[in-house]
Amino acid sequence: MAGDYDVDHWIRDEDDHVHKTWNNDREPIRIVESGDVVRFECRDANDGAITEETTPEDLAEQEFEGHALTGPVAVEGVEPSDVLQVDVLEVDHHGWGYTLYRPGERGLGLLPEDFPEGGLHVWDFDGDVGHFVNGIEIPLAPFPGVVGVAPAADGDHDTAPPRSVGGNLDVKHLVEGSTLYLPVAVEDALFSIGDGHAAQGDGEVCISAIEAPLTVTVRLTRRSDLDVQRPQFRTNGPYVQTNVADERTYGTTGVSDDLMVATKQAVRGMIDHIHENYGLTRGEAYLLCSAAIDVKINEVVNPNYVVSAYVPERIFPD
Amino acid sequence: MAGDYDVDHWIRDEDDHVHKTWNNDREPIRIVESGDVVRFECRDANDGAITEETTPEDLAEQEFEGHALTGPVAVEGVEPSDVLQVDVLEVDHHGWGYTLYRPGERGLGLLPEDFPEGGLHVWDFDGDVGHFVNGIEIPLAPFPGVVGVAPAADGDHDTAPPRSVGGNLDVKHLVEGSTLYLPVAVEDALFSIGDGHAAQGDGEVCISAIEAPLTVTVRLTRRSDLDVQRPQFRTNGPYVQTNVADERTYGTTGVSDDLMVATKQAVRGMIDHIHENYGLTRGEAYLLCSAAIDVKINEVVNPNYVVSAYVPERIFPD
Repeated sequence: MAGDYDVDHWIRDEDDHVHKTWNNDREPIRIVESGDVVRFECRDANDGAITEETTPEDLAEQEFEGHALTGPVAVEGVEPSDVLQVDVLEVDHHGWGYTLYRPGERGLGLLPEDFPEGGLHVWDFDGDVGHFVNGIEIPLAPFPGVVGVAPAADGDHDTAPPRSVGGNLDVKHLVEGSTLYLPVAVEDALFSIGDGHAAQGDGEVCISAIEAPLTVTVRLTRRSDLDVQRPQFRTNGPYVQTNVADERTYGTTGVSDDLMVATKQAVRGMIDHIHENYGLTRGEAYLLCSAAIDVKINEVVNPNYVVSAYVPERIFPD
Repeated sequence: MAGDYDVDHWIRDEDDHVHKTWNNDREPIRIVESGDVVRFECRDANDGAITEETTPEDLAEQEFEGHALTGPVAVEGVEPSDVLQVDVLEVDHHGWGYTLYRPGERGLGLLPEDFPEGGLHVWDFDGDVGHFVNGIEIPLAPFPGVVGVAPAADGDHDTAPPRSVGGNLDVKHLVEGSTLYLPVAVEDALFSIGDGHAAQGDGEVCISAIEAPLTVTVRLTRRSDLDVQRPQFRTNGPYVQTNVADERTYGTTGVSDDLMVATKQAVRGMIDHIHENYGLTRGEAYLLCSAAIDVKINEVVNPNYVVSAYVPERIFPD
């Protein structure tokens, strides 16, 4: 998409441009007009706390303060009854990223009970490919994990939960060329963005994707003709465009009358499958699942539900 | 796949070849050897009760007796500790199908509370395309909704819930060229198949897919070297190969700390989207969702989960 637009505002990576909670009373760092193109230099979610030297043991001592978001930007004249259209024009990574899960009581993710120790992989990017262990390569498809506008409720709000106004959506299809529609809750919208992901599997099961600083260029447009209650979006292609290619996938099912139980069964089945067939430790397989497997609901109507985890087999070396 | 194999056994459409419960004491209708190719003429799930003349009002008077399954076939020498490998070699539809949801107290599906009246669409197939209303066309990708082996527990068991031994899995990726791995629970496996779907969206949200009689040819092979707790499978391509093409999709999100609530929000958002933008009634949109939208889990780790429904936009006329 590069080249089809002029950048009207360039928000540089500066401490004053970063915030770590949502708050509708926060002073905007820039005021833009509807239709303007804004380039955001986004830090990684952990605000630089993870480097290529970080070890899994180091993770135990770190506190997560909230996603380092860039913004807020006020879009002049946008009203609470409007929708903010966000066209994702360009997304560029900075050459590296990491996937982690934290140890012990801070363990989040889908399966903290299975993984009491922390885990970390620092990815080196080679163009559009990220390198994992054992020759495994993941095609990159960068997108911002957090895209949102300020909530209606006053005060500070955690960045972790996504809300009806967007935020930590982790929709992997919000890559270059896609469009997101956000319900606006406050005057001028107060838009923020961050939590760059160089690639992610649907589910983001270990709690992190391939976390990475990104430069993201978007067009922000007031839409008074739309009415959505929660975020909606248009992808730039089939919904597998990102890190699953046109090749065979292997699927592991979960079968339960509880969707969460079925989801855990499916992901545990996939971790076992990768561990047993490709020589990864279970911890490595958990990290890989978060970056590259997709979780889908096969059926949600029979008395037991079926959820499956899918891995594209081409990521494994021959 | 046609032509790469010889059919060793051809199970014709006869009343004696159909059963409507799972029962590990049922006499096999055929005994085959591991590696044999078996062709099954499968009735539709409702055993012919729905015809091109059926109206939504007629549905109120029908009882569903269980899926009309073809089998069981005994695979000689297969033991309870084995896995049965099912290679799906060929799947052919018979030119028509239907999608329905039943009214009132019999209402199943994801949103019976929103749709107290019954709904029905009889689809005419034109080669690999099914015709809906308003010029909407769905690419067909036929597969058996029910594929399974007899359960370990004695007695009659409903066909509706899928189980660890398979059954009503409704995995839309089990099309021609795919392979399914089923954990075996009883001697000789006692394999049955049916519930043909000419196309289905992930989720199968209104309770039925494009229900259709199918002829399905599979190879049944004993695998003593595998160990799976629940069904696993290998697809014949990317997991969108079936009724979603390489084009833009529109997504509606659900955001909740309960996966089922998020799923309902996403599907309701999609029904609204289709109703408002393409002139369908909400009931028609619900039927279309069951046949053509896919439900995916975007993230299942942030304190609120995100689930989205995706529709491929090319199914709508310009």
